[in-house]
Amino acid sequence: MPNKQLEEEFLEYIKKMQSYEEAISMLYWDLRTGAPKKGVNQRSETIGMLSTEAFQMLVSERMNEYLTKLSEETVFHTLSPLTQKAVELLKKEYKKNKMIPPKEYEEYVILCSKAESAWEEAKEKSDFHLFAPYLKQIVDYNKKLIGYWGYKDHKYNTLLEEYEPGMTVEILDKVFSQVRDAIVPLVKEINSSPNKPETEFLYKYFPKEKQKQFSEFILKEIGYDFEAGRLDETTHPFEISLNRGDVRVTTKYDENDFRTAIFGTIHECGHAIYEQNVSETLEGTFLCSGTSMGIHESQSLFYENFIGRNEAFWERYYNNLKGYSKEQFLDVPLQDFYRAINESKSSLIRIEADELTYTLHIIIRYEIEKALFNNEILVEDLPKIWNEKYEQYLGITPKNDAEGVLQDVHWSDGSFGYFPSYALGLIYAAQFRHAMLKELPNLEELIRTDRFEEIKGWLTRNIHQFGKMKEPLHILQDVTGEGLNAEYLIKYLDEKYRNIYHI
Amino acid sequence: MPNKQLEEEFLEYIKKMQSYEEAISMLYWDLRTGAPKKGVNQRSETIGMLSTEAFQMLVSERMNEYLTKLSEETVFHTLSPLTQKAVELLKKEYKKNKMIPPKEYEEYVILCSKAESAWEEAKEKSDFHLFAPYLKQIVDYNKKLIGYWGYKDHKYNTLLEEYEPGMTVEILDKVFSQVRDAIVPLVKEINSSPNKPETEFLYKYFPKEKQKQFSEFILKEIGYDFEAGRLDETTHPFEISLNRGDVRVTTKYDENDFRTAIFGTIHECGHAIYEQNVSETLEGTFLCSGTSMGIHESQSLFYENFIGRNEAFWERYYNNLKGYSKEQFLDVPLQDFYRAINESKSSLIRIEADELTYTLHIIIRYEIEKALFNNEILVEDLPKIWNEKYEQYLGITPKNDAEGVLQDVHWSDGSFGYFPSYALGLIYAAQFRHAMLKELPNLEELIRTDRFEEIKGWLTRNIHQFGKMKEPLHILQDVTGEGLNAEYLIKYLDEKYRNIYHI
Repeated sequence: MPNKQLEEEFLEYIKKMQSYEEAISMLYWDLRTGAPKKGVNQRSETIGMLSTEAFQMLVSERMNEYLTKLSEETVFHTLSPLTQKAVELLKKEYKKNKMIPPKEYEEYVILCSKAESAWEEAKEKSDFHLFAPYLKQIVDYNKKLIGYWGYKDHKYNTLLEEYEPGMTVEILDKVFSQVRDAIVPLVKEINSSPNKPETEFLYKYFPKEKQKQFSEFILKEIGYDFEAGRLDETTHPFEISLNRGDVRVTTKYDENDFRTAIFGTIHECGHAIYEQNVSETLEGTFLCSGTSMGIHESQSLFYENFIGRNEAFWERYYNNLKGYSKEQFLDVPLQDFYRAINESKSSLIRIEADELTYTLHIIIRYEIEKALFNNEILVEDLPKIWNEKYEQYLGITPKNDAEGVLQDVHWSDGSFGYFPSYALGLIYAAQFRHAMLKELPNLEELIRTDRFEEIKGWLTRNIHQFGKMKEPLHILQDVTGEGLNAEYLIKYLDEKYRNIYHI
Repeated sequence: MPNKQLEEEFLEYIKKMQSYEEAISMLYWDLRTGAPKKGVNQRSETIGMLSTEAFQMLVSERMNEYLTKLSEETVFHTLSPLTQKAVELLKKEYKKNKMIPPKEYEEYVILCSKAESAWEEAKEKSDFHLFAPYLKQIVDYNKKLIGYWGYKDHKYNTLLEEYEPGMTVEILDKVFSQVRDAIVPLVKEINSSPNKPETEFLYKYFPKEKQKQFSEFILKEIGYDFEAGRLDETTHPFEISLNRGDVRVTTKYDENDFRTAIFGTIHECGHAIYEQNVSETLEGTFLCSGTSMGIHESQSLFYENFIGRNEAFWERYYNNLKGYSKEQFLDVPLQDFYRAINESKSSLIRIEADELTYTLHIIIRYEIEKALFNNEILVEDLPKIWNEKYEQYLGITPKNDAEGVLQDVHWSDGSFGYFPSYALGLIYAAQFRHAMLKELPNLEELIRTDRFEEIKGWLTRNIHQFGKMKEPLHILQDVTGEGLNAEYLIKYLDEKYRNIYHI
């Protein structure tokens, strides 16, 4: 078969895989946004069937043939860059999946589903021992995976690679300890500062319908394309990309804390703007999506923190907010409002943490996961170690497992190596911001005068358009001229919070 | 392979086909209820891919093997009734599809897609000649189909069989002429009756939100299960079954004519109640759905006409309606309201026709389609014939093709043989009502006192539960003890409309 024809066939093949993914995403979105409960069992079978089909296309003999032929030296260099990248990434995936004995994988899927139920029960009863036996098996399976896949330098690197290709313990140890050493004392200073913002007014009644209208207004303002997406309501907000012309976001409304919806929506919108602006040349392939968890999170956090929690943003939109709300903000000067929405304090629950302390929650998890896979600690010791680290870094100790080691779902489905992405998102975002400021030194002014097109344009040119064509550290290097560097985040947080707390 | 194992494998196979159908339905529903427009192209490709997969499973060599082996005499009698029925129906489908040369089918799909655009343009410009060349080709293809598939007695029977298995020209000629001969003079009498209902109040402003609340209230009352479905808004209302626990309906709100939403919703709800109450033993197979277009329509029309347009229904709910509306009905006595919502007059557009004249619209189409496939008339003569029949049966003549021969989409996608289902629905429904009255002689009282569970229970016992396990005429025979019989419909319409028009 001529190379050109082979390449076209291969692209048709991965397009078909992508269509399965689109259908699965659709069914998932529908389940979360209002599918009637009596249809859920049958629906799960349909999702299962489609997922199996997509997976079998990935590990099929036909895929193997494509990858082998297209990788031949005389062929590979004739391929388009898109095909080359697809071949490169699929070869990794194919190889990894082929190394796992199907029977073991099947057992693991069943284990995870049991583990999630066990975790739910354990969390409800706040008893880690109910979950520990499952967690131990999940850790063991992941150790076995590392055995199959091999590792370089650190076993945990193999798990990191799943979520953030190219990221290593060597890089993270250095950067995370730098962050920790800078933030821990800053948090202490803030906790003992007498200049705390007044926050009572935040918790006044703000009708849901009005919050919804304000959220939609803000999404339009900052550049979310409603012709390529929609906003719905769910218990757990998320962004989901069906295709680049259909990138949906959801949010949650708390009538006694408007921040949940507005900052949550801006956050998901940051994810969505990334997906809506991947180059259309990648459409119909798995490359038409954000490149990694960390880079994705950098975009959501850029919008949430650097735009949504920015003083300039509220200089522009505080009056609009007042218009949508009742009399909640009548007596609150802008400066007080700004300080209040940026309140920082040590807390126990990661997902409720503020911009400043959030990274510490992640670093704790990173250190624990790494030690677990280095065989330095045991599953049964996790609650003790968890609590000690919270005391050490945040100065507070969980009263029980539910608000401690059991708070996150991630370990129950074996997502080890995922947590660092959240902190990487912040670090990347600060590095991108620093680079952006060189080209757009008037960033604050752009925000103040709602010229978001210029900000989005910069992000699209430098990050969004590439989809998965560039790996995370490659993007970082191209945009900033350097590797991972926490200095910008530290400087940004230090300045912002010293200002807010007058310290 | 032991029979039992073969049967199980086969059932898994058709379950997988059904999962494809569920995913396709989901994507279709989403497209109609709010998918962002920029995602539609990619979405269409995904629907196309899934449809192709499902179709290929139907015509695969593997399907052929299953059907051949399971049909062997020694095997077939060991199968469950469900498997037997599935084998029987799939054998027909398999055979029919295998007879069509794939290339011809492909050309036909392309032709239909062009024909629909041509029809849209022709309708807009009210010029049949723009559509005629496409229609001619579509008719020719369907004639060729009849050639491949063969026919018994009448060529048109082969097309009827697609929508209403067992239905024939012989049966329809007799029954439709009986209906025509009874209804045409009745319509004339009514058109010239001086006792016309006052209808002006129908067109007053009724806010959409209130119509929505009233529609939801009524759906719950009459037995639609909201835990197994949901109500959304679309331009063209429909019912769609993802699985028996997820049967959705949509409606359309006209703020200047509340009847659109309320009767439309009750109609779709009749379809949905059918699908929600198929026996759960059929779940996960294509048998878990209404048996034919005609029987389906009998259920929607039973609810819409015999319940929704019944005087007893409004004795119960008129006050509720008043509560949801503004002052629209304040001075309108119940009897005037009842007469107004049942107003009948000759009109040109099928989908706007009332209960009494609707059948005549269908009979016109039936007679034309039959003559077309009997080679008694030519495509180019359709506008003339159409207009003559409207004058003859309804006493009015279309001013142009747009409100005449071009009004329906059906012919542009080759759905010949579909129209009769609508009239069959009315005839079946009246037969079912007659049978129901023997067991539930207090039917009016049940409606008046919102005991809809008893009505639904009867329909489920006699019709819904069987899904596709029984063919239409089989159900009719079991429920009524006779074949198709228009007497009950004629009697019902005669009594109802003589009463309303005091003639």
